[in-house]
Amino acid sequence: MEKWSVRTDLALESALIAEQEHGGKLDGIMSSEEQRDNTLVTTVTISEEGERITGKRQGLYVTVESTDLRGSDSSRHASISRVTADEIRRFIDSAGIHQDASCLIAGLGNDLVTPDSLGPRVTDRLIVTNHLFKLHPEHVQEGYRPVSAISPGVMGMTGIETGDILLGLIEREKPDFLIVVDALASRSIERLNATIQMTDSGIQPGAGIGNRRKEISRRTAGIPVIAIGIPTVIDAATVTRDAVELVMAHLEEKSGRGDEEWKRAFLGNIGLLSDEEKRQLIHDVLTPAGLNMIVTPKEADLFIHGAAAVISSALNEALHNRPPEETRSFFAG
Amino acid sequence: MEKWSVRTDLALESALIAEQEHGGKLDGIMSSEEQRDNTLVTTVTISEEGERITGKRQGLYVTVESTDLRGSDSSRHASISRVTADEIRRFIDSAGIHQDASCLIAGLGNDLVTPDSLGPRVTDRLIVTNHLFKLHPEHVQEGYRPVSAISPGVMGMTGIETGDILLGLIEREKPDFLIVVDALASRSIERLNATIQMTDSGIQPGAGIGNRRKEISRRTAGIPVIAIGIPTVIDAATVTRDAVELVMAHLEEKSGRGDEEWKRAFLGNIGLLSDEEKRQLIHDVLTPAGLNMIVTPKEADLFIHGAAAVISSALNEALHNRPPEETRSFFAG
Amino acid sequence: MEKWSVRTDLALESALIAEQEHGGKLDGIMSSEEQRDNTLVTTVTISEEGERITGKRQGLYVTVESTDLRGSDSSRHASISRVTADEIRRFIDSAGIHQDASCLIAGLGNDLVTPDSLGPRVTDRLIVTNHLFKLHPEHVQEGYRPVSAISPGVMGMTGIETGDILLGLIEREKPDFLIVVDALASRSIERLNATIQMTDSGIQPGAGIGNRRKEISRRTAGIPVIAIGIPTVIDAATVTRDAVELVMAHLEEKSGRGDEEWKRAFLGNIGLLSDEEKRQLIHDVLTPAGLNMIVTPKEADLFIHGAAAVISSALNEALHNRPPEETRSFFAG
Amino acid sequence: MEKWSVRTDLALESALIAEQEHGGKLDGIMSSEEQRDNTLVTTVTISEEGERITGKRQGLYVTVESTDLRGSDSSRHASISRVTADEIRRFIDSAGIHQDASCLIAGLGNDLVTPDSLGPRVTDRLIVTNHLFKLHPEHVQEGYRPVSAISPGVMGMTGIETGDILLGLIEREKPDFLIVVDALASRSIERLNATIQMTDSGIQPGAGIGNRRKEISRRTAGIPVIAIGIPTVIDAATVTRDAVELVMAHLEEKSGRGDEEWKRAFLGNIGLLSDEEKRQLIHDVLTPAGLNMIVTPKEADLFIHGAAAVISSALNEALHNRPPEETRSFFAG
Repeated sequence: MEKWSVRTDLALESALIAEQEHGGKLDGIMSSEEQRDNTLVTTVTISEEGERITGKRQGLYVTVESTDLRGSDSSRHASISRVTADEIRRFIDSAGIHQDASCLIAGLGNDLVTPDSLGPRVTDRLIVTNHLFKLHPEHVQEGYRPVSAISPGVMGMTGIETGDILLGLIEREKPDFLIVVDALASRSIERLNATIQMTDSGIQPGAGIGNRRKEISRRTAGIPVIAIGIPTVIDAATVTRDAVELVMAHLEEKSGRGDEEWKRAFLGNIGLLSDEEKRQLIHDVLTPAGLNMIVTPKEADLFIHGAAAVISSALNEALHNRPPEETRSFFAG
Repeated sequence: MEKWSVRTDLALESALIAEQEHGGKLDGIMSSEEQRDNTLVTTVTISEEGERITGKRQGLYVTVESTDLRGSDSSRHASISRVTADEIRRFIDSAGIHQDASCLIAGLGNDLVTPDSLGPRVTDRLIVTNHLFKLHPEHVQEGYRPVSAISPGVMGMTGIETGDILLGLIEREKPDFLIVVDALASRSIERLNATIQMTDSGIQPGAGIGNRRKEISRRTAGIPVIAIGIPTVIDAATVTRDAVELVMAHLEEKSGRGDEEWKRAFLGNIGLLSDEEKRQLIHDVLTPAGLNMIVTPKEADLFIHGAAAVISSALNEALHNRPPEETRSFFAG
Repeated sequence: MEKWSVRTDLALESALIAEQEHGGKLDGIMSSEEQRDNTLVTTVTISEEGERITGKRQGLYVTVESTDLRGSDSSRHASISRVTADEIRRFIDSAGIHQDASCLIAGLGNDLVTPDSLGPRVTDRLIVTNHLFKLHPEHVQEGYRPVSAISPGVMGMTGIETGDILLGLIEREKPDFLIVVDALASRSIERLNATIQMTDSGIQPGAGIGNRRKEISRRTAGIPVIAIGIPTVIDAATVTRDAVELVMAHLEEKSGRGDEEWKRAFLGNIGLLSDEEKRQLIHDVLTPAGLNMIVTPKEADLFIHGAAAVISSALNEALHNRPPEETRSFFAG
Repeated sequence: MEKWSVRTDLALESALIAEQEHGGKLDGIMSSEEQRDNTLVTTVTISEEGERITGKRQGLYVTVESTDLRGSDSSRHASISRVTADEIRRFIDSAGIHQDASCLIAGLGNDLVTPDSLGPRVTDRLIVTNHLFKLHPEHVQEGYRPVSAISPGVMGMTGIETGDILLGLIEREKPDFLIVVDALASRSIERLNATIQMTDSGIQPGAGIGNRRKEISRRTAGIPVIAIGIPTVIDAATVTRDAVELVMAHLEEKSGRGDEEWKRAFLGNIGLLSDEEKRQLIHDVLTPAGLNMIVTPKEADLFIHGAAAVISSALNEALHNRPPEETRSFFAG
């Protein structure tokens, strides 16, 4: 089933799909859940074996889920932000990153395309201090670490692989670790704009909603990489596929017969479709005009603002050891 | 089939669906096509009888279609704009509107929600002259008519029915005719961001992508109303439905058997689904999270800019009898 | 001095200027100050006599001042917002407005022109409930009052006097009271983006930075009107005039002579300039290109976001009797 | 006079000031004017000697001036764009750059701060081809050259010197030449938003309206650098200074006496002000609040759109040898 074009950037979803197919827990995937401050925190560890099964890279994946992320209640936003900050700090600590280590944050995505603008909207709101450390170190208050930030744009707008821009910058500026923020694709409407994923496994820009590009990870960058994202779109093909399968299931159930002959007739026909044919079908429905169709809530513009505020606030809190009112700055931008 | 939730604001599409169902031309619908300047101009006339069949109000509907509307070739945009201006002028003339008659243009929709922002983006770029006629009539050059413009917002943001805001304004300001511009929903990806529809039959704000609200038409406003729109979204349910049907058709064709027994088994099962059940199915797939899901090209933000420039330019040209370089002003905003 | 084109919308500043000229307190102007929650709250009452002297309309003016309004510390923003909400409530109470009375909020200004976009940015973030009271009264929770909101645009974009749009709407919708929000002009850099003024004396759209237009006040609207604003620009002529005067004062002081002859020679020459000549001078410096020049901080775009969040939050809190976390919603837009 | 804080990025203005002071033509500055297509094209050549006098770096400076740049007449914009494209081509040719040479375009400035957003707004609209040459060379049509583009942000937002980001990228990607686009400061309202300057002398990010940072030039980058800019702000101190001087001149003229005694009394006093005191005076007027004050037309947002369209269109035309309708694309963004 995985092969039939289920596009998701959430390890959580990949793990669920793999386990559903397998019919139970799998060796290469470990996961645990915890309720915290009205959010659901899920930790998924994917081993080398798990990577082979799920297609998600080996590493630790933590998601913080709450549909309040979609709302406009600022106290709930602050609370989700705090849980997220705690988890970011855990990633920083477990990578052995020192309190004074310098951080580069890259906000990936196209700031002119609403559902792809999460990264740039986050970098707009960060507390950036790297230049102060270099130019006026005497004025930097205790607790801050050197933080720099960039929105490198997308290849279609820059003509340059995002990975190349970042790796060039890392080579020259030599930050101690990298955090990348990007919009993701999920396969489920429930998790859309309601889930924050953090991982130490790196990122491939555009993996969720476009072509796979150069990997940005500890392996390629030579420094620890923490990737943070929120799903903002569902690939239109995924929704379509879900619809088709739900109809199939419904028909089968409705037939009531449980009868093998019918199933063979029916499912046999489904079976007759090769993966390639299935893909072609979806393609015929969705891309006659050569457009890159997505499914998104109509109010996506509003969600992006709130989500960017929550993530930037979490980053400011996790990176700098300062009183919360200095780092919880939702307004700048 | 119409009953199964095909959401479209394009009379063209409603007519096609009705004729497909009927299996041929229908008395209440007259249509003709013409190629002009690399665009396809289609005229659909819907009679009272046609209204009963299609659910689209009685009146004249003209569409100008060209996928160049999505591109960034300014000479093609100018050309589509000119064809559109000619058609707007035909509506003005056929309503018996005089050259000096005053016009109010209303840009409907939510300017914070990308696919719904066409109307406000158009009013941003109009040549507005009404106040000059009132305050400095001696400075108005010949050829201009009094034009005023408003973006009344959407009920969810204002708390007031858009129709009420407009009707109140018409009562007070007494323009001679009204033009409303709004984003539409289509049922076809091919026509998305590639079709401009004009009609004299009025509009129901939010009809395409939300709840039906107070009609704005000659009947309610007491003056001629010309509605102009471009489809910018497809209802997610529509795409899903299309996908399901295409799969069904494919399965049937692939079965190859042409054999009645299989068809009965299979289609019989489809037949078992009541319209209500079908709706429920789509609902189960798409709205578990209570979100208003749409299907849209990822690059919708960019299309809206071009489309708004084309429509505002066409309006400026059609309303004012001035040299083209004065009315083809793409930059203001 | 007032005659030499001191453009300010702040009663506080008009009162100061008048008292400075007069050389002491004036009968028609009463003012008092109070520190509250790290803000300076000033109350100025202008009588009929005071209106004659200051040119500011008779009524009550309250300003809440804090340079933290320019910053990005969300706890300080929340605190300024609360003080402002308390003052708005005082205006509501003193006008005898009932807890269930319906409110229309008008966000004046041009949303495409940064320093003029405060009003529209505020209406973007309001809790609007009027339509719920009309369509689903059973779903409205206790404590809310009917609130509607509109951004009527500016005459240069709509061709219609803003006053006419609002008065038409009030006539049709019959709200019990009106709140207008607008960007103001101040004469002092210190108060720019750092002062919130509230008044019961009404407003003239564009009075601060453009031509005087139809008054919106209890007298013209027939219902109580509360006007709220923040100075976002200084008229370039005002800054220029300040500079010239400061130079004059400096020269005089520096001459040290205290000597009457010099003063006569020097000030005599200043005296030779008629008001008209002074105006002409400023005009020669600032408007050779026919532009509407303003002085503004380079980062005005960022200030506007924060200021709009603070005012909308104060309005949501003051208008609805609900728990603070529901009304303090900084994110929607 | 130059010493009294005249802030301008236009060589044209620096040359005028130097010649005014000197009272005639200077050896190190050569300039010529030409009317072309209703624009004024001025060429200024500054020698090593001229650099010493004007403070502007040695090199060639070409300005294209037309107040139509502020308007919304698209045919005038197209015409200014063509003249600009011709001049860019002359810079390319005179640097010996080959038709297939690859170009990196950097749009400097802060896209969240309206008067500083010219650079990013230009890169939004460029025809970018570099990735196509790398990934699908077979699909690139003849006439295009490899073009990449980046908006590196400003140091206050990124924490990194803009020069470092660009030099790192140049080192890695090795483009054959660099074009930088930036908003400038002028000292004259007449030239604001009405002048396009091109130069081969490089740029210092933020030189016009902030602190001087690392130079980006042929010397530092190792490849030809063409800098393009439009003045969008005047330093508030400059306007103030102009006002003071105009008043002085007026007073003197008005005194009519032509009498030496008065002049001595009056100008003597001016003379008593040291440069430092003059600076202090301006500072007292303009920066008590520590804000970075600028003078700008209120409608700056609208001008930026038009200006960015004109420059991006000129770049697209100058860089690619393609039919004009493909490169004159005003809409994408």
